[in-house]
Amino acid sequence: MNDKRTTSPRRRRVLSGLGAASLATVLLPRARAAVAPLPVEPWSQQPGEPGLWHPYGLPSDFEKDVVRRISRPPAMPGATSTLTPLGDLFGAITPNGLVYERHHGGVPLIDPAQHRFVIHGLVKQAREFTLDDLMRFPSVSRVHFLECSGNTASEWKGPSGLPVQMTHGLLSCCEWTGVPLSTVLDEVGVAPEAKWFLAEGSDAAAMTRSIPLAKGLDDALLVYAQNGEHLRPENGYPLRLLLPGFEGNTNIKWLRRIKLAAEPFMTREETSKYTDLQADGLARQFVFEMDAKSVITRPSAGQHLGGPGFYPVSGLAWSGRGCITRVEVSMDGGKTWRDATLQGPVQSKAATRFEAGWHWDGAPADLQSRATDETGYVQPTRDALVAARGLNSYYHYNGIQNWQVAANGEIRNA
Amino acid sequence: MNDKRTTSPRRRRVLSGLGAASLATVLLPRARAAVAPLPVEPWSQQPGEPGLWHPYGLPSDFEKDVVRRISRPPAMPGATSTLTPLGDLFGAITPNGLVYERHHGGVPLIDPAQHRFVIHGLVKQAREFTLDDLMRFPSVSRVHFLECSGNTASEWKGPSGLPVQMTHGLLSCCEWTGVPLSTVLDEVGVAPEAKWFLAEGSDAAAMTRSIPLAKGLDDALLVYAQNGEHLRPENGYPLRLLLPGFEGNTNIKWLRRIKLAAEPFMTREETSKYTDLQADGLARQFVFEMDAKSVITRPSAGQHLGGPGFYPVSGLAWSGRGCITRVEVSMDGGKTWRDATLQGPVQSKAATRFEAGWHWDGAPADLQSRATDETGYVQPTRDALVAARGLNSYYHYNGIQNWQVAANGEIRNA
Repeated sequence: MNDKRTTSPRRRRVLSGLGAASLATVLLPRARAAVAPLPVEPWSQQPGEPGLWHPYGLPSDFEKDVVRRISRPPAMPGATSTLTPLGDLFGAITPNGLVYERHHGGVPLIDPAQHRFVIHGLVKQAREFTLDDLMRFPSVSRVHFLECSGNTASEWKGPSGLPVQMTHGLLSCCEWTGVPLSTVLDEVGVAPEAKWFLAEGSDAAAMTRSIPLAKGLDDALLVYAQNGEHLRPENGYPLRLLLPGFEGNTNIKWLRRIKLAAEPFMTREETSKYTDLQADGLARQFVFEMDAKSVITRPSAGQHLGGPGFYPVSGLAWSGRGCITRVEVSMDGGKTWRDATLQGPVQSKAATRFEAGWHWDGAPADLQSRATDETGYVQPTRDALVAARGLNSYYHYNGIQNWQVAANGEIRNA
Repeated sequence: MNDKRTTSPRRRRVLSGLGAASLATVLLPRARAAVAPLPVEPWSQQPGEPGLWHPYGLPSDFEKDVVRRISRPPAMPGATSTLTPLGDLFGAITPNGLVYERHHGGVPLIDPAQHRFVIHGLVKQAREFTLDDLMRFPSVSRVHFLECSGNTASEWKGPSGLPVQMTHGLLSCCEWTGVPLSTVLDEVGVAPEAKWFLAEGSDAAAMTRSIPLAKGLDDALLVYAQNGEHLRPENGYPLRLLLPGFEGNTNIKWLRRIKLAAEPFMTREETSKYTDLQADGLARQFVFEMDAKSVITRPSAGQHLGGPGFYPVSGLAWSGRGCITRVEVSMDGGKTWRDATLQGPVQSKAATRFEAGWHWDGAPADLQSRATDETGYVQPTRDALVAARGLNSYYHYNGIQNWQVAANGEIRNA
C-alpha cells in the first residue's frame, strides 16, 4: 500500500494528525484478504419478513440492549429519570424512542382534542387555545439539545465509575417544531410591566417554573412535534415549552398555562429545588443556561478496545449559550490537546458531534474532551469547577470527563 | 389589537405578504377569551404512568393512525412498498419508525456479528470487513433524503385522487452515519481501469445495481446508523450503501459486496427495471439523480380547512443535485407565485421544509409548490414533464402537485 500512501490526497487528509500511524498498518491486518467467495448466509436463501410487519417500525432485536435506563429507584412513584444510551448512539439526533425522561408526577396520557392552553396575567387580552389553534400559527423547526440540570451530578465528588449513559445520559437532541412563543405573545399583547412568566404543566405534579419574559420574546417555542412527528407522551405530548439552552426542567411538558407577571413566582422548583448551594452557604437561584460541556461517547467506560491500532474518538458537545466553536481531545489525561473535527452544520444550542482519529499504542491512556462555545467559555476541569463552586452543589456539573484506558483495552470511569 | 398591529416589528414580519389579512382577524375569534380558570383535567388529578414503562418509547395512542401504509398488495410476497405519512409530519427529519420501505425479497433479519462485507474486483487487494472493522474507520454524519424512483408515479396520467402519503410518501429524510466509501476504497486500492462498481444486498432478492465509481469516490457512504441509532432492519440493518441524491433502489440495503469493474454489470434492475421508456420507444438507462421536486404536505388532499382565515402552507422540497435554493407557492393553480420561507440550515441533497402564510378567503383555491435547486433547475408542471418524456415512463415523476380546495374546506388531489 506504500504507493497509495504517497499518492492519495484524500488519504493524506484522513491520516493527518496521526503521525507515523496509518489506517493501513492498523486496520488491514484485521480485515481479512478476501480470497474465497462470501458464504451465502441463511437470510439470503429465503424470503425475508414481509414489509409492513411493523406499520410503526422498531429497532432490530439485536439492539435490544440499546434502551433508556433508570439510574436508581425513584424516591416516590412517578418521580423518575431515564437516561439516553449515549455510548451506543451516533450523529447528533437522538431517536425519539431513546430521548431521556424526567418526570415529577409520572407521564399523563392526554387527549389532544381535550387539551387547552391559556395565556393570562399581565396581558392585554387573556386567551385560551386548542392545539389546532396553535397549529394554525406560522411554525418553525429547530434542532436543540435538552439537558437535565442534574446531568453528570454523579461526578461532583470524583469519578463515579459509571458508564456514559449513567453519567451524561440526561441529554438528548431533537429537531423540534412549534410556534415561536413571541408570536403568541404578540396575539395576546404583553403589558408593559410584565417581566416574567410562569409556565405550568398539566401533569399531576403541576410542574411550574418562572421564566424571564425576555426568553419568551427571544427563542422560546411552543412545541408540538419532535424529530418529525408529534411529541412523545413522556416528552410532553401534546404541547411543551422549549427554552433552547435552558436547564431541562424549565422546558415545561404537557404545557397548559403561561401567566405573565412583574416578578418571579417562587415556586417550590426554584426555592427548595433547582438551586445551587455554594461553598459559602448561599445558593445560586435562576441558573437557567447550561454551560458548555462535552463528553467522549465512544470509546467510553464499559466499552473495550480490541487491541492497538486506529480508533475514531467520538463524542458530543453542546452549550446553552450558542454554537460550539471548538472541541479538543486529550489522550494523556489533559497534558496535551488537539482539535477534533466538528460535524456540521453546527447549530446554536444543539448537540454537535465531534470526532478525532487516535492511534492507540496499547499503553494505558486517559481520554478527555474539552468544549469551547461562541462566547469563548471553555469547559473546566473538575478541579476548577469545585474550586469555583464548592462541593455543596448538585446541579450544573460540566467538568471535563476522563475515561481511563487500561493496557488490556478495558475502559473505566476513573 | 390595532395598537399592536402598528407597533410590533415582529408582527409586521409575520404578516408580511398577507396583504390586508392578519393573524388577529383570523385566529382570535377562534381562540376563546379566557374568562374562567381552566378545568383541572382527569390526567392532572392523579399520578401519570411511571417512567420507563417503555424502555424504548413509542408514540401516543392518539397518533395510532400515523403509520406507514401500503399502496397496493404486492405482486409477490416480500416485494412491498410502504409509504411515509408526510401529511402528518413536521420539520425535515423522518422518524425511523416511519421511514418508507421498498423491498424486493422481504426484510432479512441479520445478525451483525455474522455479517461480512467484501470489496473485490478491480482493486489492488480485495478485502473482507466485519461491521466492527467498518466502525473503526473515521465516520461522518449527514442529513440526506431518500426517494424511491417510483415515487409519485400515480400522477403520470393526471391527478390520481390520492392523499400525499400515497402520492409522495416514498420519500424520507434522515441523519445517516457511516464511513465514506472513498476511505474504504483507498484502503483496498482502486485499479486504474475501474470505472463502475456493483453493489449487492444480502436479501433474498440479492438486489444489485451498477454505480459509477465517481459516485463512490464522491459522497457515497457505507452507513450503519440513521437518526442516531443503528439502522432499522427494513432500512438495511446492519449495513447499507447511501448514494446521496440517487434513486432509492441504488442505495443497496443489507450490503454484502462491492465489486469494481470497467463497465456496468447490466443487472436485471438496470435492464428490465428502473429504466424510463420514452415517447419514441427508446429507454433512458442509469438515470440516477432525483430531479428537484416539492410537495405541500399541509394542507393536502384528505385534510380539511376549518373555515376562512390564516393557514400556514407547509411542505417539503428536495433535489438530488444539491441544495434547494427556492420554493414558490401558488394558491391559484399556478397563475401567480410567491416565495415560501425555507427552514434552515438548508443542506445538500436533504429534504427542506418550506412554509408560506396564506389567508384563505373561503373561495375555491388550487395550492401548488415549485422547487428550484442550486443548478437552476426548476420543478416542471405535469404538462411540461409529459411533453418532454411522454407517457410511457413510470419512474422519476417530479411534476408540480395540485391540491384543490373546495369552498367547504375539503381538499382533493384534482
